[in-house]
Amino acid sequence: MRRYTFAAFALAAAVLAVRPLGAQELVREYPGLETGTMWTFDVPPLAYWAARYDFRPATGWLDHVRLSSVRQPGCSASFVSGQGLVMTNHHCARGCIEAVTREGEDFIEDGFYAATRDEERSCPNFWLDQLLSIRDVTDSVVSAVPSGVTPTQAAEARAAAIVDIQDRCRATGESLNCQVVTMYRGGQYKLYTFRRYTDVRLVFAPDGTAAFFGGDPDNFTYPRYDLDISFYRAYEDGQPVESTDHLVWSAQGSAEGDLVFVVGNPGSTGRLNTIAQMEYLRDVQYPAQLTGYAARIPVLHDLSSADPQRARTYRNQIFGLENSQKAVTGYRAGLLDPGLMEWKATWEKEFRAKVAANPDLKAQYGSAWDEIAKIRAALASVDARRRYHTFNMYGSRLMNVAGMLVRAPIEMAKPDAERARPYQEANRAQLERMLGGTVDTLYERRILAAFFEGMAHELPAGDPVRRVALGNRAPEQAAATMVGQTVLTNPEQVRGLLTGGSAAVAASSDPFIALARVIEPLERELGAKVTDLFDREAQQDERIARALLAVFGNSVAPDATFSLRISDGVVARYPYNGTIAAPYTTFYGLYDRWTAFKGQDPWVMHQRWIDAKDKLDLATPINAVSTNDIIGGNSGSPVINRDGEVVGLIFDGNIEQLPNRFLYTQSVARSVWVDARGIVEALRKVYGAGTLVDELLGH
Amino acid sequence: MRRYTFAAFALAAAVLAVRPLGAQELVREYPGLETGTMWTFDVPPLAYWAARYDFRPATGWLDHVRLSSVRQPGCSASFVSGQGLVMTNHHCARGCIEAVTREGEDFIEDGFYAATRDEERSCPNFWLDQLLSIRDVTDSVVSAVPSGVTPTQAAEARAAAIVDIQDRCRATGESLNCQVVTMYRGGQYKLYTFRRYTDVRLVFAPDGTAAFFGGDPDNFTYPRYDLDISFYRAYEDGQPVESTDHLVWSAQGSAEGDLVFVVGNPGSTGRLNTIAQMEYLRDVQYPAQLTGYAARIPVLHDLSSADPQRARTYRNQIFGLENSQKAVTGYRAGLLDPGLMEWKATWEKEFRAKVAANPDLKAQYGSAWDEIAKIRAALASVDARRRYHTFNMYGSRLMNVAGMLVRAPIEMAKPDAERARPYQEANRAQLERMLGGTVDTLYERRILAAFFEGMAHELPAGDPVRRVALGNRAPEQAAATMVGQTVLTNPEQVRGLLTGGSAAVAASSDPFIALARVIEPLERELGAKVTDLFDREAQQDERIARALLAVFGNSVAPDATFSLRISDGVVARYPYNGTIAAPYTTFYGLYDRWTAFKGQDPWVMHQRWIDAKDKLDLATPINAVSTNDIIGGNSGSPVINRDGEVVGLIFDGNIEQLPNRFLYTQSVARSVWVDARGIVEALRKVYGAGTLVDELLGH
Repeated sequence: MRRYTFAAFALAAAVLAVRPLGAQELVREYPGLETGTMWTFDVPPLAYWAARYDFRPATGWLDHVRLSSVRQPGCSASFVSGQGLVMTNHHCARGCIEAVTREGEDFIEDGFYAATRDEERSCPNFWLDQLLSIRDVTDSVVSAVPSGVTPTQAAEARAAAIVDIQDRCRATGESLNCQVVTMYRGGQYKLYTFRRYTDVRLVFAPDGTAAFFGGDPDNFTYPRYDLDISFYRAYEDGQPVESTDHLVWSAQGSAEGDLVFVVGNPGSTGRLNTIAQMEYLRDVQYPAQLTGYAARIPVLHDLSSADPQRARTYRNQIFGLENSQKAVTGYRAGLLDPGLMEWKATWEKEFRAKVAANPDLKAQYGSAWDEIAKIRAALASVDARRRYHTFNMYGSRLMNVAGMLVRAPIEMAKPDAERARPYQEANRAQLERMLGGTVDTLYERRILAAFFEGMAHELPAGDPVRRVALGNRAPEQAAATMVGQTVLTNPEQVRGLLTGGSAAVAASSDPFIALARVIEPLERELGAKVTDLFDREAQQDERIARALLAVFGNSVAPDATFSLRISDGVVARYPYNGTIAAPYTTFYGLYDRWTAFKGQDPWVMHQRWIDAKDKLDLATPINAVSTNDIIGGNSGSPVINRDGEVVGLIFDGNIEQLPNRFLYTQSVARSVWVDARGIVEALRKVYGAGTLVDELLGH
Repeated sequence: MRRYTFAAFALAAAVLAVRPLGAQELVREYPGLETGTMWTFDVPPLAYWAARYDFRPATGWLDHVRLSSVRQPGCSASFVSGQGLVMTNHHCARGCIEAVTREGEDFIEDGFYAATRDEERSCPNFWLDQLLSIRDVTDSVVSAVPSGVTPTQAAEARAAAIVDIQDRCRATGESLNCQVVTMYRGGQYKLYTFRRYTDVRLVFAPDGTAAFFGGDPDNFTYPRYDLDISFYRAYEDGQPVESTDHLVWSAQGSAEGDLVFVVGNPGSTGRLNTIAQMEYLRDVQYPAQLTGYAARIPVLHDLSSADPQRARTYRNQIFGLENSQKAVTGYRAGLLDPGLMEWKATWEKEFRAKVAANPDLKAQYGSAWDEIAKIRAALASVDARRRYHTFNMYGSRLMNVAGMLVRAPIEMAKPDAERARPYQEANRAQLERMLGGTVDTLYERRILAAFFEGMAHELPAGDPVRRVALGNRAPEQAAATMVGQTVLTNPEQVRGLLTGGSAAVAASSDPFIALARVIEPLERELGAKVTDLFDREAQQDERIARALLAVFGNSVAPDATFSLRISDGVVARYPYNGTIAAPYTTFYGLYDRWTAFKGQDPWVMHQRWIDAKDKLDLATPINAVSTNDIIGGNSGSPVINRDGEVVGLIFDGNIEQLPNRFLYTQSVARSVWVDARGIVEALRKVYGAGTLVDELLGH
């Protein structure tokens, strides 16, 4: 086993403690950080790191860190031993944990630990991607688009070129996965080549209550007390992978002021959005989404509180909606902050002034911002219709079935290959299954009433969809009547309409079919218009990206694209709740919150934690915060120190970090991680996982 | 020892758990709660208590609770044993603790415990007032004001009548203190008669770090972990007071949802303010105060960080300013909340409509709101001059001395009794001491520069004070020159100017004296004008109060006046920081926060707490929150249950409670108290105060 060490940095690490910076300060002292610090491994910001942290990675440091990192579906992870041991979050391993659970077991409830290799269990349909190389393929992609074509034709040509590059790359070796990553919204295209591991086995998962202590309320917040960890092992040819590149566990852990890096795959940010795009989100898209959540969530709560069976049925849906509500509220909070928006507006103004000052740039890119503003105005003008001329009515099953039935004869009339996917012959059985499920008519009535309520507010009285849906009826009455009269609750009737084709659909007097017949042509027409607008906008995004690279060069980090990044940050307290949030929480705090809520759900504790209370060193840190730049997709990212050693495991951000989606700041936004010391303490004393600890510590 | 019990309520207490209400909900369900729940003992809201909590106090309950409560300078307290034991906050006992400390002792650092009566130490110049009776004297006060006099003459006649009533009351018995309390801003006058205890001795105080754990950052916040307690004993004729009326310690403590009462003396609220008065605070007074804090605090921090001696000198001043800054920011937050202000505006509109609908009320009171708006407009128009035509320049000593010197000959020319108090012969020695102190010229230069900076922004160029202070100089330059040239740093020169009278003052070329000569007549004239405006406003306040009583009767609680009140509330969690704050914190949480900050100031822990860690039951609640209506002055108030038993001790509110100063809400505003269970656990295991615990528990 090769142990990678960085003795050269031991001294520097001891000397420097770095403070986080406010937004304005950050940009003044380190221009280029407006778009955050999600750096790519092919363009590391060496000058900035040297200036701010006196950090100069040794030769091989970046390659080692990159090769120690892996990507999994939706999350990040890393090798943490020489025998293929991989660390990620519990919420990233949840799919595998559930999949490997057998009759009579409940690993989500009780946790899982394979003390020996034989006890490890294979995660089905799973993979880990290790990034081997990055190559610039911008020219190949750009040159594949003929001039003089429509925006949609251009998009199609680009997509075809990308598929071609990826296919050719995959053909060059075994177990390779290749992906062309669009950087700067089309400013650059990079070919990422991965080694893909598909034999991955579960080694350890804590009980779900320890992993997600505090549940949905504590989600996106700090102070926090979660052991959101899991471990897999990657195998090749039936043997554990010899992961020579893996992260070594830190003996000391971190301290406040320390420089730390997060290495992982942030999913999506919008830092290169123009003001027009941000105002659209703030004033059009997000308010509409929030209205929807506010309409749907109380219905689901009402139904759940009246009926335990429905409580089980709608539990995941409620969680998903509340989670989105919390996130979108947070994203919007940044856009509503006049200080942040002004700062962004100033930045854009200065950027545009630089473009305008150069005749070449001006001619090539100068008009892009105004074009985008026009496109967003066009999108805003059709927004209400996009949301109400649709079969997707807050998840109404009846409306969805009616929509599919009305669309079926139209699609079936086309050659199989040209049909929308659900209507292709290969998917016929699936289509019939989708149409055959059971219907909760109480839910349908309530959710449609909520949807029609919004429709009555937002569509004009003469709107054709509103006319058929509501007529002169109150929303609740319309929903009750439609649900009362429909025949679509009867699978036989549904099958008859599907097999009966356009004649049967045209002849049906079912109220949902009647409404769907009105919606269908309107939705199709509007859909084409919106696709065209987005394709046009993509071209303008690309122009702005080229302008950005021309003015700032690579010093500006690209937006997140669920590709491997390294972000620098500092372990730091921050102002919160009228006082200060400490940089660490401890096991003391876990037991405080558990006791203070008397162990009520979701502040539940597994019996093994209650039993372990007196054995634990309660002063051990369990969670920590730092200024690293992360977003969804970073879950499971390792937090490492200057020496590349593991000091933590990312699992969330605080509520103040949500606005960072669009506007990067360090003053109160924090990444939240599980502390490496807390992981070892809990594995040893709560879970008796001594063998796993020995492997982590390299004993 | 008589043990007061309320067996009749034991059943009801077990049945009911009550939830807090949102602002709108509160007013809809219990109209009259707009002004909060600081009820007086002569008009208890029996119908509201019965309706909301099914609580009907037994005969004697209210008298017992009233007689168990005492008022002390600036704080509240209560008898908690039959031998005169009195409980209050550490921050209320601080003056006594410091006063009884002798050479070589440090009770603020180490705490104090008198295990025997002999070891108790007398608090000098101290008193406790026990409320014996309340009598309405409105008619006597109102009839003492002749009709047709000026507002200022009316105010003087009222004040004289009040002094007379108080004097006659005091003459009726030994050890009596009598006070006419103005309720509803002059709507009612009530004579409060107290038994005054003046022999009060210190029994127990914890170490200051446990009492004020988290210091200024955690002040006004929750979750919290403070043991802010102290105990005195009241004596009469050299013997402990036989306090037959005292609060019994609860054996069980409280639980979430419990009805609890806070009995104490809230200092001052502004719930009866009109919209014009609130807008004045929001737009004129508070912004000016905040500008002042923002200008002064950085100067003091700069000076302190450069010099440990200055750090000690300015420590209290920094604390006071930061405390005020936090409080005023919080008060203003409520006034800036459009939802809250709209709710208040609606309430006022409806109240005025009711007055206007009744011809009598309309004729008597209808114009009061507009009159107040005019007065506030007049105050706003002179606001900048009030703040800059003054000798009080952010606490500049040189300017203050110059002001006193310039004013001295004018005051000295009057008969002694008519002079302002500092210039009366009896205070001559004190005046000379005040003028003779040392001057920190660096502080003077910095603080005057900050003040002049504000002046340059807020006074027009032609203003006479600005002209002399600044001329064409930059603020910093003006301050440096004045401090550089002044002779007032020399006590001999100061004494010469004082004894030299008007001739010496007129002849002086000292820059501060020159500036003071310009300010003096302007300040005097403006002062008279402002006094007249406030006296006029007092008359309008009284008219509105009479209208309020005519429309709503006594169902609306009067504003706080540092007189005894009883407020109902519920132990309740609340939304905070994106999640939920638990109703209790525990000793676990104390050690969490201590560990997380590595014991850095102000999260310091006395060695005895570190030693006691393993002895304590860490799950014991230390602090708790409830919806009771409190404000400064309530510090030291007992929190009691339906049976009148002690379950806690008020010591603070959360940051969300600050806006309650003007707009009463329950949704997130919380009172913060020390839990009775935590008090006993700490007294026993950290302080070894078993005797005290036995007395509390009645063993």
